[in-house]
Amino acid sequence: MKTSLSKRSLLFVITILLLTLFVTSFVSFSQTYVRNEIKIPDVSGYLTLKCDFHMHTVFSDGEVWPTVRVEEAWCEGLDAISITDHIEYQPHKKDVLKNHHRPYEIAKSKANELGIILIKGAEITRDMPPGHFNAIFLENIDPLDTENWRDAIKAANDQGAFVFWNHPGWRQVDEIPIWYDEHTDLFEKGWFQGIEVVNYYRYYPKTYQWALDKKLTILGNSDVHPPTGMDFDLAHGGHRPMTLVFAKEKSETAIKEALLNRRTAVYFNNLIIGEEKFLKLLFDESNDVINSEVTIKGKGGVNIQIHNKSDLNFELIADGENAAITVPQNLTLSPDRTVLVRISGKNEQMTGTQKIILPFRVKNLLIAPEQGLAIELNMTVHFISGEK
Amino acid sequence: MKTSLSKRSLLFVITILLLTLFVTSFVSFSQTYVRNEIKIPDVSGYLTLKCDFHMHTVFSDGEVWPTVRVEEAWCEGLDAISITDHIEYQPHKKDVLKNHHRPYEIAKSKANELGIILIKGAEITRDMPPGHFNAIFLENIDPLDTENWRDAIKAANDQGAFVFWNHPGWRQVDEIPIWYDEHTDLFEKGWFQGIEVVNYYRYYPKTYQWALDKKLTILGNSDVHPPTGMDFDLAHGGHRPMTLVFAKEKSETAIKEALLNRRTAVYFNNLIIGEEKFLKLLFDESNDVINSEVTIKGKGGVNIQIHNKSDLNFELIADGENAAITVPQNLTLSPDRTVLVRISGKNEQMTGTQKIILPFRVKNLLIAPEQGLAIELNMTVHFISGEK
Amino acid sequence: MKTSLSKRSLLFVITILLLTLFVTSFVSFSQTYVRNEIKIPDVSGYLTLKCDFHMHTVFSDGEVWPTVRVEEAWCEGLDAISITDHIEYQPHKKDVLKNHHRPYEIAKSKANELGIILIKGAEITRDMPPGHFNAIFLENIDPLDTENWRDAIKAANDQGAFVFWNHPGWRQVDEIPIWYDEHTDLFEKGWFQGIEVVNYYRYYPKTYQWALDKKLTILGNSDVHPPTGMDFDLAHGGHRPMTLVFAKEKSETAIKEALLNRRTAVYFNNLIIGEEKFLKLLFDESNDVINSEVTIKGKGGVNIQIHNKSDLNFELIADGENAAITVPQNLTLSPDRTVLVRISGKNEQMTGTQKIILPFRVKNLLIAPEQGLAIELNMTVHFISGEK
Amino acid sequence: MKTSLSKRSLLFVITILLLTLFVTSFVSFSQTYVRNEIKIPDVSGYLTLKCDFHMHTVFSDGEVWPTVRVEEAWCEGLDAISITDHIEYQPHKKDVLKNHHRPYEIAKSKANELGIILIKGAEITRDMPPGHFNAIFLENIDPLDTENWRDAIKAANDQGAFVFWNHPGWRQVDEIPIWYDEHTDLFEKGWFQGIEVVNYYRYYPKTYQWALDKKLTILGNSDVHPPTGMDFDLAHGGHRPMTLVFAKEKSETAIKEALLNRRTAVYFNNLIIGEEKFLKLLFDESNDVINSEVTIKGKGGVNIQIHNKSDLNFELIADGENAAITVPQNLTLSPDRTVLVRISGKNEQMTGTQKIILPFRVKNLLIAPEQGLAIELNMTVHFISGEK
Repeated sequence: MKTSLSKRSLLFVITILLLTLFVTSFVSFSQTYVRNEIKIPDVSGYLTLKCDFHMHTVFSDGEVWPTVRVEEAWCEGLDAISITDHIEYQPHKKDVLKNHHRPYEIAKSKANELGIILIKGAEITRDMPPGHFNAIFLENIDPLDTENWRDAIKAANDQGAFVFWNHPGWRQVDEIPIWYDEHTDLFEKGWFQGIEVVNYYRYYPKTYQWALDKKLTILGNSDVHPPTGMDFDLAHGGHRPMTLVFAKEKSETAIKEALLNRRTAVYFNNLIIGEEKFLKLLFDESNDVINSEVTIKGKGGVNIQIHNKSDLNFELIADGENAAITVPQNLTLSPDRTVLVRISGKNEQMTGTQKIILPFRVKNLLIAPEQGLAIELNMTVHFISGEK
Repeated sequence: MKTSLSKRSLLFVITILLLTLFVTSFVSFSQTYVRNEIKIPDVSGYLTLKCDFHMHTVFSDGEVWPTVRVEEAWCEGLDAISITDHIEYQPHKKDVLKNHHRPYEIAKSKANELGIILIKGAEITRDMPPGHFNAIFLENIDPLDTENWRDAIKAANDQGAFVFWNHPGWRQVDEIPIWYDEHTDLFEKGWFQGIEVVNYYRYYPKTYQWALDKKLTILGNSDVHPPTGMDFDLAHGGHRPMTLVFAKEKSETAIKEALLNRRTAVYFNNLIIGEEKFLKLLFDESNDVINSEVTIKGKGGVNIQIHNKSDLNFELIADGENAAITVPQNLTLSPDRTVLVRISGKNEQMTGTQKIILPFRVKNLLIAPEQGLAIELNMTVHFISGEK
Repeated sequence: MKTSLSKRSLLFVITILLLTLFVTSFVSFSQTYVRNEIKIPDVSGYLTLKCDFHMHTVFSDGEVWPTVRVEEAWCEGLDAISITDHIEYQPHKKDVLKNHHRPYEIAKSKANELGIILIKGAEITRDMPPGHFNAIFLENIDPLDTENWRDAIKAANDQGAFVFWNHPGWRQVDEIPIWYDEHTDLFEKGWFQGIEVVNYYRYYPKTYQWALDKKLTILGNSDVHPPTGMDFDLAHGGHRPMTLVFAKEKSETAIKEALLNRRTAVYFNNLIIGEEKFLKLLFDESNDVINSEVTIKGKGGVNIQIHNKSDLNFELIADGENAAITVPQNLTLSPDRTVLVRISGKNEQMTGTQKIILPFRVKNLLIAPEQGLAIELNMTVHFISGEK
Repeated sequence: MKTSLSKRSLLFVITILLLTLFVTSFVSFSQTYVRNEIKIPDVSGYLTLKCDFHMHTVFSDGEVWPTVRVEEAWCEGLDAISITDHIEYQPHKKDVLKNHHRPYEIAKSKANELGIILIKGAEITRDMPPGHFNAIFLENIDPLDTENWRDAIKAANDQGAFVFWNHPGWRQVDEIPIWYDEHTDLFEKGWFQGIEVVNYYRYYPKTYQWALDKKLTILGNSDVHPPTGMDFDLAHGGHRPMTLVFAKEKSETAIKEALLNRRTAVYFNNLIIGEEKFLKLLFDESNDVINSEVTIKGKGGVNIQIHNKSDLNFELIADGENAAITVPQNLTLSPDRTVLVRISGKNEQMTGTQKIILPFRVKNLLIAPEQGLAIELNMTVHFISGEK
């Protein structure tokens, strides 16, 4: 009795449900934008800010309204951007009135609303040499709109701007950069402080070496013109090139101080480019060895678990030999994952306890143009004899 | 001997390899855009064209340059678009000069290059009533820029434009549309031929009923303002709302002919809205029953495999009873997948062969505001007794 | 001169590169398993351990070797499992010799190697009533293999096992569980301490109410038979049902202590089921309001950013009214994302500063069978007049 | 009035909805398995069957029940499999009774139900030389369970089995295969007809050359032991290695005929290995040039659209020069996508119409161990002068 009643009421409920679902299951509620935070650890007491200091809007040859650049930055996990429309190149000027200040003015309230640091900038756009230079932290862009490029760069410096040489391989054979007398002149005057080692889809190893030799700040920027989702594969976990700034706090002032003191690294696809001291800390803060004390019996193997809590990918290769153990030739520490690393003994009779550093190098953390970071994964290994 | 030599040369090769990979594994080649074709079958000898007749650029209140709309359309698998900037609402006019023809002019060569049909259009933007109307297939937008809204709509009709009422719930309580005398007037004059049953994130069931009753062409459009990737979840397989046009060929003329003859459907999230005759064909052309002849023993079960070769999702619910078999209450035919459908006998003693239509309705193919399409999956079932 | 030389050598390098890539780009290195940690915060000084206490192998009616259960658990981010093969139901016994201890014995060394806590268990498998019961933390399974089900359950209790009633709706009409006299008897004797409110694909609200009323420990388990990847959609971010155990440390003893003291919750698809005190902490520890102090002008709006650092999904609905502000009706806090919540003023003239609790309930955190958790998102709002 | 009524009833509906959704939104219906068809075109009037002829179960050293192998094959889009448990190696024999026929017997009804062709097979498992050989299309496995390996291989041939040498690099230095006198002996007797050029994670180029020289049938198989989802990255679009069999129909007999007549190719990660005649057809049937007639003005560029309708990835590199146009150095034709290929004129004054074959080679279609397939993408190009 009871069951049949319950069944009847159940049928009623199901009928209601189906009708209801019929109406409701296709309703979407208005979307709110979401931000994908990029997990890169802070290092040495500095915040690791994610920044892009080179991009365009319809006010020069870009294809989006300035507010879009702020919304994209927020969604993609950036902390700071600079819109750097060309001063001298304005292909849309038939339709969009020339005014160097409008991109910043238009984007500023959206930036405030979303908490994105917006830095006023512009691109000084001349033939090679000297090519293109970005000036950021500007007060007034108009004085840079002048005939002589030296005057333009000087005007930026006079305002205390941070100036850097963009995509140095531009218009060169095979995109290999050339350092001209003009660059020596600018460099000796102290008129540019930084240089792009990465721009858009390109990494310039030669430029990286210049930066190391001449103590220039390294930068990597998107130089994006269309919506970022059209140029970068955000849909499959990709990201635009960006400059990591190790700053004392999250502020425009702190970013400028860090740039002037060369506390940057470049994040480009899987690659991180920067000084050894920063890259070593990025690695160490990202990865934990879960079982750092293990026992190996003779030539047997044991699994070590390493957990990478960052969004970075670390591609390790064996580098050097250890007398007591062998390690895999290749190893990828994937973002947000724990991996098994199999190490094995070399000697059937070995006994005793050793402190061992696993001999690996990180192929994609570049402390010099072609030099991966050597790392130190410390283990305590107890060896017991494998013989019966 | 030979082995050791081979090993030495192998080591050499590996060294070269590692050095080489070191340099090369981070190089990316310049990206070329890719197009994601949307697999929806052609029906009844008509091509199924994917179209979006409502979108904006920086020339009214949109946030992208007109060429972006063409590139987005190409990447997202569309065949035709119309840029329909507001005639009367130009919030960027301080920076972007007012000229109703520029979006079309700027986008046209990119459209030609990519094979996207670009239709000249504009949005007549007035208070409710009568609200907003799109006019497409225009020759000249300027005559529509006039004080009286009746004059504007007439001017569109005078040019032979196709005119439709946009987002009819706009500014109404709970977005529920109201049909005013003004609409009756326009309708009786034949001054609008279509109506949006879907706009952006919203489906208007009431509007769908009006369209059925009054023989208006149904449309579903994006009305997108920012880059489409910011408004629609393209990264996870989402798509903008679009109008499916069943056209005699892929041309602007054929699209107009189809719109005038009400050969459209609307594709919105998982939902397809349209006339039974078209939706039935879309279902039939998309799905194949792989084993349509099966044997059931008594009350035993058997698996039927159904392959959906389209990009559409079909959500089936059991609808009605069959005397001989039971079917699952719910069943999803996922895009590009084959699924198992378990059917079972109802009677242990049953014998003989029957033609059976599986009693399903497709919840998300709407042939009326709240009515899913009834389908006919035909089976031949051989029943054999389940008794020993 | 120099350039052409450089170009020639570049061509040479490119040739080498292409040849090399030709050979190497298709090589894959042997895969190492990766573990996907599930980010759920620890609460109240307890570790939140992810556990599954119900699964099968080829030793009863499962389809995998016991070691697979350990490897799956490791890859899926679990901390502890119990293999609970049926004692009385051994459909593979023609091929696989009956021995209740072998699943544990075979899996144990793999569990040690990977750091998975493996708890010895078995499923007492009888008709309803009383249905199936799992006994875990067993010393010896053999005494449970006895004719009378009361003897079997008593034998488990005699060993100090933790005993729980599995999938209580099994074999009932519409899977709605019935509490029989047999259950009263067992309950009054204290012979079972827990009950599954979730098993496989099913949530039993009625069972959840019983657990609340009778102070039974709630559990949610997979009851998986094939490889887990065939039953659960791991490929798209899905997970098996699991029991969250709030334990004093990561050990078998601590898990038992927590189970006996009812410190558990159930994680099933998007749903978390459990006591208010735990769920409230899970929510609070997972989410940060980034800008908890905002200014609203008149009826204007402001965006609040909420960052969810866990892997859980929180589905909020507005619940109750606030006199000063309106909030969105629906809001999803997605895993590992920051979302914008738009709140608006209600009164154009309002001024002053208020502490406001945003009126939301979390639909998918169930503190009772159909009751979502009320939460307290605290804001400080400065109101300024919207009038000129 | 009316509106307020409508609003009240709307509130009622919303209340019902929310209550209803509360209960229902977490219900999952029992999962049905889905099959991911692999789109590889049929060629030359043959069906392209996807087959895996090498895998293990708990009956030797595998970790799954035989039915799992059938279900996996169905879900992963395969047409035919052979379970080939080791005859001489039975590490689970303490628990699983030795019986060479049980894997086939147990799996057969599931194979019939799902339409998977199940071929009876076994692995003859001996030290190197001669190593391991699979025998498939066996009638009776027992005669192969004999002391002398020559007797075992002869017994297989006596039954008309198809016999192939597995993973020929097994137990060799750096996995480089060695052809021993024992292999010459077997080969000259005609006792093996095929050879694995791919096994699990490994491609053996040297073996591929042997197969070309000696007219052996090439095979690529998974040799999987755990659930396939643990060894292959199915979650991210990966697939197990498989043998493509070009068969006259979908039947066991037709597969055997094709194997004996060497109509196979190997599909391994991105790589397809096989005879030029088959690979050329696979490429041609997969790809369509959408606009094969274009106009180039002087040194200007034009976009060609190529649509790849298969699930294969084609990695093209420029190969050779064309006097009139330049093509990109690299080009990837992604599965189910249309890509843009930019070609440019070389000569500002060029005029007239030419038939042009775009000079590309497909890096990942291997017609010899290190030789990519040359393809012929035919274009008609109209050149018009670029001078004013």
